Amino acid sequence: MTATEIIGLLAASLTTAAFFPQVIKTVKSKSTKDISLPMYSLMFAGTVSWLVYGLLIFDLPIILANGISSIASFVIFYFKFREVLHHKKAAK
Amino acid sequence: MTATEIIGLLAASLTTAAFFPQVIKTVKSKSTKDISLPMYSLMFAGTVSWLVYGLLIFDLPIILANGISSIASFVIFYFKFREVLHHKKAAK
Repeated sequence: MTATEIIGLLAASLTTAAFFPQVIKTVKSKSTKDISLPMYSLMFAGTVSWLVYGLLIFDLPIILANGISSIASFVIFYFKFREVLHHKKAAK
Repeated sequence: MTATEIIGLLAASLTTAAFFPQVIKTVKSKSTKDISLPMYSLMFAGTVSWLVYGLLIFDLPIILANGISSIASFVIFYFKFREVLHHKKAAK
């Protein structure tokens, strides 16, 4: 494995792992006031697009990293969306 | 441009654009209670690693997307870190 490949794998591992502390914090606290709904809408759509791209070029690191990231970003999106719905209901 | 390339560019645009609504929300509200510090530490380290990887293989989309994402994730990291420091000082 070349140094460049190692840096690429490190990069993919870091940006994939990054979602986990946020998922754990959000699932535990269920508080999403400071989290941006458009961020996680775009991030979910983006990681799913990366996953499709990875499947099309059959690149395993892209498939794995974005398979995991799309699930993680969906979980955060779900909790934020639930809070937004709840606030709309409460405002009625 | 092939359909696969278009999906790749769409994916890169979406995951890069995703950070902006969060940056705007965080800079405006300066409230980061629900945001995870380890997420943005890892995301900043990860996007900088992707940037280095892009420079090594000289891939312009990777360079552009991660140059932008690393600045955006640093801004969110900075506001969260400032809040954590402030709370530590207040607790003394």
